[in-house]
Amino acid sequence: MPEYVTDADDPRLADFTGLRDVELRKSLESERGLFVAEGEKVIRRAVGAGYPVRAVLTTERWLASLADVLGDAPVYVVSEEVMQGVAGFQVHRGALASMERLPVPPVAKVLEGGSRIVVLEDLVDHGNVGAIFRCAAALGVDGIILSPRCADPLYRRSVKVSMGAIFAIPYARMDNWYDGLEEIRAAGFQTLALTPDQSVIPLDTVEMSDRVALLLGSEGDGLSSRWLREADEQVCIQMSPTAMEAGVDSLNVVAAAAIACHGLMRGAADPVSKPISQN
Amino acid sequence: MPEYVTDADDPRLADFTGLRDVELRKSLESERGLFVAEGEKVIRRAVGAGYPVRAVLTTERWLASLADVLGDAPVYVVSEEVMQGVAGFQVHRGALASMERLPVPPVAKVLEGGSRIVVLEDLVDHGNVGAIFRCAAALGVDGIILSPRCADPLYRRSVKVSMGAIFAIPYARMDNWYDGLEEIRAAGFQTLALTPDQSVIPLDTVEMSDRVALLLGSEGDGLSSRWLREADEQVCIQMSPTAMEAGVDSLNVVAAAAIACHGLMRGAADPVSKPISQN
Repeated sequence: MPEYVTDADDPRLADFTGLRDVELRKSLESERGLFVAEGEKVIRRAVGAGYPVRAVLTTERWLASLADVLGDAPVYVVSEEVMQGVAGFQVHRGALASMERLPVPPVAKVLEGGSRIVVLEDLVDHGNVGAIFRCAAALGVDGIILSPRCADPLYRRSVKVSMGAIFAIPYARMDNWYDGLEEIRAAGFQTLALTPDQSVIPLDTVEMSDRVALLLGSEGDGLSSRWLREADEQVCIQMSPTAMEAGVDSLNVVAAAAIACHGLMRGAADPVSKPISQN
Repeated sequence: MPEYVTDADDPRLADFTGLRDVELRKSLESERGLFVAEGEKVIRRAVGAGYPVRAVLTTERWLASLADVLGDAPVYVVSEEVMQGVAGFQVHRGALASMERLPVPPVAKVLEGGSRIVVLEDLVDHGNVGAIFRCAAALGVDGIILSPRCADPLYRRSVKVSMGAIFAIPYARMDNWYDGLEEIRAAGFQTLALTPDQSVIPLDTVEMSDRVALLLGSEGDGLSSRWLREADEQVCIQMSPTAMEAGVDSLNVVAAAAIACHGLMRGAADPVSKPISQN
């Protein structure tokens, strides 16, 4: 049964407080083991992926649209104003769910059976992480491995930008950055480090093995020198020399990731390499 | 000589008012024939591309960094608080320049001599337009044609997200959406319409002529049925059938544009198709 709440400070709404305050949310979410999904579509995908709903915060207008997916979770119905007061901004399509985090599998589990994986080193922007998950999932990458310091894919903005693709591709987080690549190589993956350096081999022409791990670095500095050095091969996306002279000398990490994930599927065992007829 | 201004409502600062108010800015900028560049790097690129500076708004701290590029334009120096009061938000790296718009060349001029162009139909998000300009410029696309209703590449956020790439690639705007493609085809371009429809030919395998125009549609609905129908060929980026079953059934427009611009360069006459050695 929906419970009507009129006070933004009501302790029942505590899972949803201050959604724009990154530091507050990081500590609150890790302490409580929760994350927040926003909007009906994303909430449905999270439920479909097996994440238990802790609580839902919505307005009268959006209540009916979620009725069938909520199970026994408490549903708090508030006015638009209270919603904004709790969350700290105008909530997209008026529905938030706090969900329980599930244990993240070990790296070995995500590598198992995979042919193409992406490894993210220390990305800081949640939107970029979400966008890369969406690309990787859509293009048929088998899994994503995060460095210990990489931004959280279950942070609200990651989930939102991914359009729920976070729930469609397995991922794991390394315990240890220093030896992190070693485990991936030991599992039989050829490691390709993406760099803007145009003197290395283009990804399009590198010879790829059956199992390939593509390494993507952080927004500002790219990959660490350790990972660049440790990788089997450094690869680049070819850019226009004219543009580089004009100072357009890099792609943003999401554009680079999109091109690289697409390139990664060349020769992969996945059915994505064959056109699909819709007839 | 810098002029010190202490009042956010000072009429000399009117070029910079309400930068977060999209509707206000649209009418103000078109009325005055100006746009706003943000941050030293982008301002330098705009100046380098020949846009005259109308006025600069900055704080004491950032004044020196711009001294050599400003010419005779008035420079208004304000406190951080006044800056925020005028602009409506905390300004990135403390410098704004209002610049004069220059006449946009006719479509024919941008098509002239080009081998690979991108045509944007009705994109609404300024950040997406800026990101696509950055990709297109970096990857060696020769020019961009905008539909009449496509978002403005010189809007502050477009310029910012493009990292100044807006100034590195020629663009033009169609007068007329209905017959817009006709002019491009008449100039000898093969028109390829990008669609998420997986039943059409993948861009990677389509036979491309010497002159190719890639058509990209708006964020929500993609290309109009008219343009889809009029194009010489509909092309897709192949997605994973597994992901599509899980509901990840599209890429965002910037990711799609990045992959498509990269694919477009295949076989292009541009030197980007050859690896560049930095040694």
